[in-house]
Amino acid sequence: MREVADRAGVAMSSVSRVLSKHPDVSPAMRDRVLAAVDELGYEPDILAQSLRRKETRTIGFVVGDISNPLFAQIAMGAEGALRENGYSMLLTNSENDPRLDAGHVSLLRQRRVDGLLLSTASEDSPELFAALEGFEGPVVLIDRDLPKKLGASAVLSDHRSGMRDAIGHLLDLGHRRIGMIIGQPLRFSRERRIGLEEAYAQRGLDDTFIVLEGRLSPEHGRSATRELLAAPEPPTAIVTGGNQILLGALEEIHDRNLALGSELSLISCDTVSLTELHQPPIAVVRRDPREIGRRAGGLLLRHLTDSSAPPEEVTLPTEFVARASCGPPS
Amino acid sequence: MREVADRAGVAMSSVSRVLSKHPDVSPAMRDRVLAAVDELGYEPDILAQSLRRKETRTIGFVVGDISNPLFAQIAMGAEGALRENGYSMLLTNSENDPRLDAGHVSLLRQRRVDGLLLSTASEDSPELFAALEGFEGPVVLIDRDLPKKLGASAVLSDHRSGMRDAIGHLLDLGHRRIGMIIGQPLRFSRERRIGLEEAYAQRGLDDTFIVLEGRLSPEHGRSATRELLAAPEPPTAIVTGGNQILLGALEEIHDRNLALGSELSLISCDTVSLTELHQPPIAVVRRDPREIGRRAGGLLLRHLTDSSAPPEEVTLPTEFVARASCGPPS
Repeated sequence: MREVADRAGVAMSSVSRVLSKHPDVSPAMRDRVLAAVDELGYEPDILAQSLRRKETRTIGFVVGDISNPLFAQIAMGAEGALRENGYSMLLTNSENDPRLDAGHVSLLRQRRVDGLLLSTASEDSPELFAALEGFEGPVVLIDRDLPKKLGASAVLSDHRSGMRDAIGHLLDLGHRRIGMIIGQPLRFSRERRIGLEEAYAQRGLDDTFIVLEGRLSPEHGRSATRELLAAPEPPTAIVTGGNQILLGALEEIHDRNLALGSELSLISCDTVSLTELHQPPIAVVRRDPREIGRRAGGLLLRHLTDSSAPPEEVTLPTEFVARASCGPPS
Repeated sequence: MREVADRAGVAMSSVSRVLSKHPDVSPAMRDRVLAAVDELGYEPDILAQSLRRKETRTIGFVVGDISNPLFAQIAMGAEGALRENGYSMLLTNSENDPRLDAGHVSLLRQRRVDGLLLSTASEDSPELFAALEGFEGPVVLIDRDLPKKLGASAVLSDHRSGMRDAIGHLLDLGHRRIGMIIGQPLRFSRERRIGLEEAYAQRGLDDTFIVLEGRLSPEHGRSATRELLAAPEPPTAIVTGGNQILLGALEEIHDRNLALGSELSLISCDTVSLTELHQPPIAVVRRDPREIGRRAGGLLLRHLTDSSAPPEEVTLPTEFVARASCGPPS
């Protein structure tokens, strides 16, 4: 910085004013300093600055499971919104292990990120709550339900109504025995289950469905599908509540050579390449992951520019898309 | 830290020695200090420490395109190896945009990561080279070919031999007109092309193949497939050199209702859920992305513990897996 001041022939304080974008700087002064910065290839020590200013213009995104292609889309949506506003994003991956969430929040806090996006592997980890209480910046949850006292904002998906429509479609086709395979009890699993129940209740039908809860993994998808199909009266339709679950379910369905849409109906949650390019294409409850990321990034930016803004919850729609993987029960 | 010293009834310098794992510390002293640390919930200010020690035990991973599911596997392999050794990992995503690579290297440098894993969107960006020259820690490239003067180590995949076997399989089935669709000129695209050429050369066959180069995107995959199939003498087999390219190629193939394995043969690169669960399953040139990540993490750890270790190149195998998407030409 001294070299820049010498080269520009100005005081150190003038260099500092230009670089901190102080309003009381003449255009001529600004040009002289920036020219010297360019010539010297000077790069401000952002970390030392941030220790003084307590700002790094960096956001941390704690991702529960980066192998879910949905997160790539959400991350890209958020990254775009943040980059337009001069923020960079750092990701951590918890590999679906709740114990890692808290550690990642602490790591990002120590790396002094200005704000956090959270899509954690669990919603009830005391270690996570403690780590979050130690974080001073704004936090935006993505499809997670954490205690209100943490003061976080959230971008949620209305899983319930999309799933209600999906189950309604199956019921209207004549299905009564529907099997739903979901993951650990996170918000989206709970909401999907309620959507299922509501669709039956709306039609005054008995609860002739079965819900198998487990992990968001191909192994659970496969073993739950096997369990459902081995029942004395197996379901005529299966709904998979997660991309990893879908993978295992399809393996089992292929191994049994079941024709989707005639011998068994199948609906999954979220559009991935497999649901689109499978033959027949697989019906889905769809949402817009890029938009979810954009809105989450936007909400975080709002809190970063106005620290007095109250926590906010945004709920985005889901939509059922009927496809050839669904037909009347055989 | 003063509170810890007071609570433990020892000098500040003793606390410091225990926390920095200094060898000259008695077990009794160590236990007393760590008990006080636990009781007070003391958390060392890692950033302030790192400014003194110049070490953050954090690694940065610059990912070219996080929407490629292969990266999730590589990242998880690397993260596992690093975590076992007390390192955390931060990811950035360049969205396949070379201009972002250099910015991410700078960001991670400013966040003072100790080392870098790089799978950049380009191999010839002067901005990237400049950013890397400013980075003091070790760098490990993942399947990228950057100038040797940068002194980086690398974990590479032997794409050439796997592709030679794949093309050999098609040639032995009787195919002669083979279309290959690849992305921008990165190492793996070049190597796959050479593998193709070698398979023809080994058999003394004329170069009756066609290679279409473009972006690693579904759009390129689709338009290149359309172009290949619209030719007066269309290829009887197509090889897609990337997951995103495969998506577009399959869209076009499905739209034309071409039966894979009889009307058209198809081989892709890298195992993803779609290649496994497509019907028929799609033949692939396979590699082990977790192992790639593990080896890259291990190489980085080696350089972090021994800064005098010379750069090293590790090449891991690829393997062709024949599947029902390949058959004799119709």
